[in-house]
Parts: sequence; structure tokens; C-alpha cells
Amino acid sequence: MLNFELYTPTKVIFGKNTESQTGEIVKSYGAKKVLIHYGGESAKRSGLLNKICDALKTSQIEYALLGGVVPNPRLSKVNEGIELCSKENIDFILAVGGGSVIDSAKAIGYGVASGGNVWDFYEGTRSITACLPIGCVLTIAAAGSEMSNSSVITNEDGWLKRGSKSDLGRPRFTIMNPELTYTLPKYQTACGCVDILMHTMERYFNNTTMELTDHLSEALMRTVIMNSKILLTKPENYRARAEIMWASSISHNGLLGCGTDGGDWASHQIEHELGGLFDVAHGAGLAAIWGSWARYVYQENVERFAQFAANVFDIPCGSNLAEAALAGIEAMENFYRLIEMPVSIAEMGIHLTDEQIETLAYKCTFQNTRTVGIIKKLSLDDLANIYQMAKI
Amino acid sequence: MLNFELYTPTKVIFGKNTESQTGEIVKSYGAKKVLIHYGGESAKRSGLLNKICDALKTSQIEYALLGGVVPNPRLSKVNEGIELCSKENIDFILAVGGGSVIDSAKAIGYGVASGGNVWDFYEGTRSITACLPIGCVLTIAAAGSEMSNSSVITNEDGWLKRGSKSDLGRPRFTIMNPELTYTLPKYQTACGCVDILMHTMERYFNNTTMELTDHLSEALMRTVIMNSKILLTKPENYRARAEIMWASSISHNGLLGCGTDGGDWASHQIEHELGGLFDVAHGAGLAAIWGSWARYVYQENVERFAQFAANVFDIPCGSNLAEAALAGIEAMENFYRLIEMPVSIAEMGIHLTDEQIETLAYKCTFQNTRTVGIIKKLSLDDLANIYQMAKI
Repeated sequence: MLNFELYTPTKVIFGKNTESQTGEIVKSYGAKKVLIHYGGESAKRSGLLNKICDALKTSQIEYALLGGVVPNPRLSKVNEGIELCSKENIDFILAVGGGSVIDSAKAIGYGVASGGNVWDFYEGTRSITACLPIGCVLTIAAAGSEMSNSSVITNEDGWLKRGSKSDLGRPRFTIMNPELTYTLPKYQTACGCVDILMHTMERYFNNTTMELTDHLSEALMRTVIMNSKILLTKPENYRARAEIMWASSISHNGLLGCGTDGGDWASHQIEHELGGLFDVAHGAGLAAIWGSWARYVYQENVERFAQFAANVFDIPCGSNLAEAALAGIEAMENFYRLIEMPVSIAEMGIHLTDEQIETLAYKCTFQNTRTVGIIKKLSLDDLANIYQMAKI
Repeated sequence: MLNFELYTPTKVIFGKNTESQTGEIVKSYGAKKVLIHYGGESAKRSGLLNKICDALKTSQIEYALLGGVVPNPRLSKVNEGIELCSKENIDFILAVGGGSVIDSAKAIGYGVASGGNVWDFYEGTRSITACLPIGCVLTIAAAGSEMSNSSVITNEDGWLKRGSKSDLGRPRFTIMNPELTYTLPKYQTACGCVDILMHTMERYFNNTTMELTDHLSEALMRTVIMNSKILLTKPENYRARAEIMWASSISHNGLLGCGTDGGDWASHQIEHELGGLFDVAHGAGLAAIWGSWARYVYQENVERFAQFAANVFDIPCGSNLAEAALAGIEAMENFYRLIEMPVSIAEMGIHLTDEQIETLAYKCTFQNTRTVGIIKKLSLDDLANIYQMAKI
């Protein structure tokens, strides 16, 4: 067990019709002019955007609008936001959407507060020292960005997908109404469930652990798996939507990493390159590669994979730990199949060439300057092997 | 499942030797002069107080000292603190101790920031609108006050023990080094474990629930039970001390009440009166009355008690839910016996008279003006019955 810090200052306002409180909540933070940052047309079509605008008007708060954030949010949109904020004297950013919108809002917040080239923060060549205050109205349960300190942006120049972390970017508040996720397509719902699970699993698969963190993580994974199945046939089941939505925040706010070595995160790194190159849905990409990663590395910490099998899938864990570990990996893949997620890259319609695999592995190791992961430190060759395994 | 809000802004700094960071952390909050608030001689004897003073000096922060906080912290000490803070121009309170010291620090914080009679906040006749910033160096894992919004103070005039709640009182940071709890006597360690369990159980026994909250709660209870047993014979087991210490914060910071009706809390109310009248250790008092409360009310929500039995104690839950529920209650009492906690009031050396029982029930219902609890709303007569059951 390692020393740790945990800081989760985001105020959560959770439940039915909570978005109607947006105006008064934004006002309580002293905001004068707000950037409402959002994604596509669905926020307009559903009437949510109008509702938010009305709530701000009622609280006499001015605002500007910036939509058009896409999945795997782009640096160009971030730069557009920074420019708009400066022009309009924005002092608060309200992200209305899912992880992409919130990540984009964080990047804009860093850029406005710090000046200079915001990509530096994502390249790791400059430290984040300030951020505009951010609030969220969450519409997709997946990324956990609504309580997290992380943000992932894709630079179109080279299609580099990079993450940054700063407690300064943690949203001040997050409004979560599970009903806002009723209309999410089945595929996107399932992608979200995978993402939530993977945020916990990345932390869970480590070499240094804490019992309380382990058991809280297992409790979350079981709850997500159970409720993902309900949503397959009942997309408007409030309880299931709520369980999944709340799990998305808990999974990624830091709680489930306490006392551990921070987790492995190789699956995320492997998927980031796929996402950067092919623009696949993040959750689907994770499902597609996880099993290959797990089979490639499980022997490095077979006890942990066996514990996962026993405590998440009730797989009896006898003397043959490797057998239990493999059964656990298979059980998770079967769950992914059940919720209609891919368990190989080919199942996403992508047929990797050997040259593409080399490129992916090369980019994933930052031009062969780093290894990836903790359970097993993956080299350029290891990563190429995993992409190869996951290809079919 | 109900709508909820969760706000846990306390920064946690957890692990070995973290108390050495006290000076720099206090400084980061802009403090100029700090009140170091503490309990008895143990903080001096252990050298902790000196270490904290040295850390503040190194960071060039002035301080004043106020010790002498006792278990079931007194209003007179709070008033002494308020006076000292005004005289010394204190702008930050550092609580070095356990729940009593932190609760006392919160009361002082409210009093200094608001003026007037601080007891009003505990009587519920005035709302808390401000608090001096508070930080903690935790030395006892029990009350969870280090991340919570609650504070309980005893007014010697009538020996009234009353609680107040305000997010303004949540500590800015909490430093937790499990090693600081190594020297706690066995009895106090066990009392802490009961208190931690009870903070979760009070929330868990409710009529409106959320699956994720349930499973996180069950995970915490199992972890605490397991590690309490280790501490019986190995008080210097770092892992076990750490699991218990982190559980103390998680148990009471609000997380385990999300989506529920807030929990029952009757056991706490029943114990508060015992604590006010006889000055018993809080954890021991809770252990002494819980089984009687549980047997008195379990039929009102037998499914929940059966779930507790199954998921915390692995008691098979067949068609006879009442049998499983009672077995779960017995299992918890047996655990209390194992860690040498009382399971009746007599076991604490207190032999209640009928007149005392009447007085306790009368005070517990605020002079027969309220009921207590949610699973079953307990009247004056119900409470007298429970004290009677718990007496032997």
C-alpha cells in the first residue's frame, strides 16, 4: 500500500430535473458571463440547451454558445473556444455534454487562464498553473471527466491523442440527471459502460493494492455489469441509468486508485492510438483490445487476475490461478459480447496492416522513448504483439 | 432512489510520515496564525505536537495552542477556543486528534466566524453561515469528522449532546498517517471500529436505496470487520491500521448515503443520550445498544436486514428472511463480542433504573416532541422499550 492524495472537490447534484437548478448554481460561483460548450445537435433537439439558456437568463447570467465538439475532441475547437472566451470576457465555462465536451472545456479553461499554446500542456512541456472555473451538465455516462482531473485532446496535426492531468481542471460542480441519458443510442450506452468499467479496471490491475480500494472497485464493477445488462432491453429504466451514471463519476474521480501504484493504463494508451488514427468510439476501442492486453500480461500478476475472476464474476479460485485468471478474462469478453461491443479490432471494421501496427506501437511509445503499463512494462515489440493479437 | 447532493472537498493526504508536510500545507491555504487544537497528553508524549509546531515554525506560521478537549467534547472548551481565537487573531484552526478534537474545532470555527452564542447552531435555532478554515492531523480512526460536515458537542448545562451539520465545517485538508494510531489502546481501537461500521450501517439501514451505494457499503463493512480482527493481536500492523483509517473517512463523508433517504440514525440518537448522561465511549455505547435496536425494528424492513446478513456475513438467505435477518444481527453482535465491545448497557458497568430509562427516552425525543429513526419511527415508548432491552 502506497501513500496517496485524494482531492474530489466537485459538488455533485444528482437526480431528476436537477438541470433546472443550473442558473442558481452557476450564479453561486459568482459567474458573470458563461461559455456554454456543447457537442452536436442532440442537445438542441432534446430541448436541453434551451432549458439551460433559460435557466441562466432567469438568474441574469450572460452567456455565449460554442457547439460542435466531436468525440475525440479536437485541438482546433479548443483554440476556437479560447479565442471566443477572450473576445467575450468569459469567466465561467459550462460544459453541456459528455466526456468530450468536458475535456474540451478543461482545455479551453487552461488556455484562457494561462495564455500561450495550450497543446504544450498535453505534450507535457509546460505545467498547468490555472484554469477558468468549470461546471458540467452531464448527458453521457462514460468518461468520468465530470469529477476527474484529466482531459484528453486530439491534435489534428499528426492525429496525436494526448492526455493532461491537473486538479485545477476538476469541475466545480456537476449536474447529473440520469433521464438525460435515456435517448443515447444502444451502441453509445454500451461504449459508456465499457469506459466506466475500464477506468476501474485500469486502476485495479496493478502491483500495489489496498484492500478497501479493491473491494470498492469490485462492488462498482459488479454494479455496472448488472445494470448494463438491464439497459440492453430497458434504455429508459431510471434506476439502471442512475447506477451507471453515478458509477461513471466514482470510477474516475480518484477514489478507486487510493493506496495503489496508480494502475496500469496500458489499455487506454493502446486504445488512444487507435482513437487518434481511426476515430473509433473510445469504449468500443477499449473493449476491442482489452482481452488481448490481459492475455498478454496476466502471468505477470496471476493472483490479481484470479481475484478479479473470483470477486467480479464468482469464478471459483482453486489452486490453478492461471485457469481462474483466464476464465475471468473470458467472462469479461463474454460480457462485452453480450452488450454488443467488439472484442477485436477487426470487429470494428478496421483491418490493420503490419505497417499500421508498427506505426501504432511507435506512436504509443512516443517514438520508442517510453514503455507503457505497470503490470508488465510494454516495449515497442510488446505493443506490436498486442495490436497483432487484437487485430483479428 | 432519491435525488442527492455530494460535496467532499477535503483534500486527503494519506500515508507514512505525511504529518511532516503540515507546515507547507497550512501555508498553501494562506494561514497567518493557527490555533493548534488538541486533546490530552498523548499528543505531547508521542512527540507529535512538537513535530507539528516545528513544521509550522519552518513554514514561518505563527500559532497558539489549546489542548484539553475530552471525549464527548464540551461547550465550555469550545467557548474558551472562540475567545482565544478572537484574542490571538487566529485565521486557521488545525485540529490534531480524533473526532472530539475535530468536532470541537468546527464549533470554534463556527463561533469565531459568526459571533453570538455557538450553542444556537447545535440547538437548531440558528443556521451556520460561516466557518474559519479547518485542517486536521488525524490520530484516531473512528468518527470520520475529518471529512464530514458534522460536529457533536455536549453542553454541560443539562448534559445535552447535540449535533450540527454544515458543509462550511468540512475540513480543507486532512493528514492521515496510520502509524499515529499504533499506540491507541485496544479498547479505543475497537470503539473506533464500531463507530466506523455504525456510520455505514446507519446509512445502510434505510427504506430507499441505491445499488451502487449498497455494494460500496457492504465492501466497506467487510473490510472493516476483517481488519478489526487483525488489530486485536497486531496493533502495529500498518496495512490493517491504514484500511481502518481510510474506512473511517469514507464511512462518514457522505458517499455511502448517496441516493438513499439519509439512513436511520436511531442508534446514534439513542447512544447520544447515554453519552451525554454517563460519558461512555461513543463506539462502546453504539455496540451496546445496536443489537436491541435492530431486534426491535428489523421486521419493518426484513429484506434489508436479510441483505445485510447475506452480503456482509455470507449468511445464506433462503425463503425465511426473518431467520436470516436475525442471524445477521447475531453475527454482528458476535463480532462486537470478539473485539471485546459490550453488547448491552450493563456490560459497560451501567445499571439503568426505570427512572433513568424514562429520562433517556424523554431527552432522546426532545421532550417528547419528535420521533427517532426511519426504518421504524420510534416514539417515547419505543425508545424506553429499546433502552429496557439493551439494559441487561
